Amino acid sequence: MSSAVILGDWGTSRLRLFRMDGDKVAARAEGPGIGALDGPAVVALRAALAELIAPGAEARIILCGMAGSRNGLVEAPYAECPAGLAEWRYQAARTVVDGAEVRVLPGLACVTPAGAPDVMRGEETQIFGAMALDPALAQGRHVIALPGTHCKWAVVEDGKVAGFQTWFTGELYALLAQHSTLARAGTDEGGREEGFQAGLERAASDPDLSGALFTARAAQLREGRSHGWALGYLSGLLIGQEIGAASQGEAVTLVGAPALTNAYVRAMAARGITSRVLDGEQCALAGLQLHGNAA
Amino acid sequence: MSSAVILGDWGTSRLRLFRMDGDKVAARAEGPGIGALDGPAVVALRAALAELIAPGAEARIILCGMAGSRNGLVEAPYAECPAGLAEWRYQAARTVVDGAEVRVLPGLACVTPAGAPDVMRGEETQIFGAMALDPALAQGRHVIALPGTHCKWAVVEDGKVAGFQTWFTGELYALLAQHSTLARAGTDEGGREEGFQAGLERAASDPDLSGALFTARAAQLREGRSHGWALGYLSGLLIGQEIGAASQGEAVTLVGAPALTNAYVRAMAARGITSRVLDGEQCALAGLQLHGNAA
Repeated sequence: MSSAVILGDWGTSRLRLFRMDGDKVAARAEGPGIGALDGPAVVALRAALAELIAPGAEARIILCGMAGSRNGLVEAPYAECPAGLAEWRYQAARTVVDGAEVRVLPGLACVTPAGAPDVMRGEETQIFGAMALDPALAQGRHVIALPGTHCKWAVVEDGKVAGFQTWFTGELYALLAQHSTLARAGTDEGGREEGFQAGLERAASDPDLSGALFTARAAQLREGRSHGWALGYLSGLLIGQEIGAASQGEAVTLVGAPALTNAYVRAMAARGITSRVLDGEQCALAGLQLHGNAA
Repeated sequence: MSSAVILGDWGTSRLRLFRMDGDKVAARAEGPGIGALDGPAVVALRAALAELIAPGAEARIILCGMAGSRNGLVEAPYAECPAGLAEWRYQAARTVVDGAEVRVLPGLACVTPAGAPDVMRGEETQIFGAMALDPALAQGRHVIALPGTHCKWAVVEDGKVAGFQTWFTGELYALLAQHSTLARAGTDEGGREEGFQAGLERAASDPDLSGALFTARAAQLREGRSHGWALGYLSGLLIGQEIGAASQGEAVTLVGAPALTNAYVRAMAARGITSRVLDGEQCALAGLQLHGNAA
């Protein structure tokens, strides 16, 4: 019996494991994200693995994402941009869990045009996976945006990640929606679409975020807007401003979960920016397989 | 025995009561803010009042701030801008607590240059108080900024509040410092000054906030920056961007607590903007006395 191949995307909020049968997913398991662990990472990994393989079974495990952070399973380095597949693959960290070899893929690091340091862990696997799924992406220059808790905008040039920058949009939205005075205590969830549109319009006319946020609250007090409208406004404002700041007008390949990429497609269309969407999970699997196949 | 005069500033986070002896503060008491109540507002008011006057004593009580909000003691209206002293004074709400007459001062409402609604509750009292303390402010056009949980930038023209806009800076900083992944888990509190300066510089070169926030984390991971540096960076970034967006270069009168107004003075100086500072509590008392004296 040949050894099982387990691929995994272990981010801040979720662990997703896939037992592969060639190029197909034969079974899945989930576990807590690195940011949600209440004990050693290896214990959480073992629990999720037990759903996919018998204890002690021969297996090769390949993980990307926060699994390689300081608080993860084993610290993996950052490959410096510009980084191609070779530079990235070369720097995987290795460990052993219950006899199974585990490789944890490196993240990427760069310096942004503003001269600031930036890092990613996990999105690089989706980027290399996207180029594997669509070889045209690996030729010439392309802009890839990966919405999520943090949205990474990357430029790839002839198959290498030339550089990238992080927008804090997803986490900022969650903070404002869950903890701020802007969206408190509403019950009427209608009006989201109209609010999203209003947020996009505000972003298009004004790049200043901090001076636009309070409108979410004032519009509830003064214009009878709903809680749902306020959440939609915040979403449209944050995504609209991100696109206004990040985009140079070039066509964008969006990689992520459909609910989120759809909002970006709409916001980009409102600015006349062409976009197309690739599924985030498929890109992650394709990127992880680049390591599985090299073993 | 004449009736006691109690002035109070009841905001989201704190109640401050002052028993006056003419123009002087004879005694003070504190209580929970409107946002921190765990029962009816009147119960909290009664508890704080008991530190200043005997139960059932004759008293006139004048309150400003969130005391007049829907969740406050009694809902007070918003006076529409442009609003002078007469329009503002006229709209106070009245109620009675244990036989004492309580007036709750109105807030102000306006429409910002971006066409969005905006409101304030409490800062208008400081603005009218500032003009009472410094009559030169009540002649001609002046810019007054009131840093706090939310920073209000107001334009006064010949003694009237012509309009204003809210920046979310203070609450946004608190959300990022307490709840985000940007400033988590550090112990080294040094480096704040250097971080503040770096945040100001980033703000001066780039008006985009969401794309600049993640530097607080990446600089810890990649450049060995401290937790204190990250907090300083966030403070400098938020204050710097606010000033960049709000200021047209005119001289600014800052009204607020010294720890906060000092940071604004420094950030304004870095952009060549002249500022001077008035104490927020003194301005609030002066504004409240405008009603006390009119009784």
